Amino acid sequence: MFIQLDFESKKPIYTQLKHEIIAGIARKDLSAGEALPSVRSLAADLGINLHTVNKAYQQLKQEGFILIHRQKGVVIHPDGVPEAGEDYYAELKETLRPSIAESICRGLSEEEYLSICQDIFKGFKEGEKK
Amino acid sequence: MFIQLDFESKKPIYTQLKHEIIAGIARKDLSAGEALPSVRSLAADLGINLHTVNKAYQQLKQEGFILIHRQKGVVIHPDGVPEAGEDYYAELKETLRPSIAESICRGLSEEEYLSICQDIFKGFKEGEKK
Repeated sequence: MFIQLDFESKKPIYTQLKHEIIAGIARKDLSAGEALPSVRSLAADLGINLHTVNKAYQQLKQEGFILIHRQKGVVIHPDGVPEAGEDYYAELKETLRPSIAESICRGLSEEEYLSICQDIFKGFKEGEKK
Repeated sequence: MFIQLDFESKKPIYTQLKHEIIAGIARKDLSAGEALPSVRSLAADLGINLHTVNKAYQQLKQEGFILIHRQKGVVIHPDGVPEAGEDYYAELKETLRPSIAESICRGLSEEEYLSICQDIFKGFKEGEKK
């Protein structure tokens, strides 16, 4: 599994790890039911704290991306990630609104903003790592 | 000035306040050089702590949205907000990537995602408050 962490970033490592796993699902590197490394082994591989991996896994579990089995270990949710519901749409708008507001203030056009989004979609479709 | 805070939200109040002011600039309710209330008066109006307002103002200052004058008080940056540079594009992609990854996992189509963005742009153009 490809996981890239930036130890210089302001974004907490557990958030980065969570985002990397979600990105792996989005670009279909990780598929439903696929096993993920144990907390211990992923922490050792990435050279980070056990608690950091655990926090990322707990959030991914809570948000429906993974299952944590006592015996089978950690797997990508076999039924697939829950589809976007009302809550998710609300959350998405809450993320996009400030980003679009700031972009308007900084002189980006709507076309430019949408084209950045399209490039990112394209990247995921083509399985780009970053 | 229209400022809506959600005390139930997981988003810190200083971040909400900062985003509300940026949104005010985006929808042209606040224009270059316009005065903002003092820390003390805004805190009293909104019923929040002085330090919360101060933290929002400090971040807005650092990011080029406002100026804090000793005598003239707080004003929207008279020269306008600094245009998007390389750093801002990188930051924007860092915000959009996880949001797009999660949307893909939750079954949103690219068209649907872009249309949500377009609606938000439209809202700012039309001066919608939320």
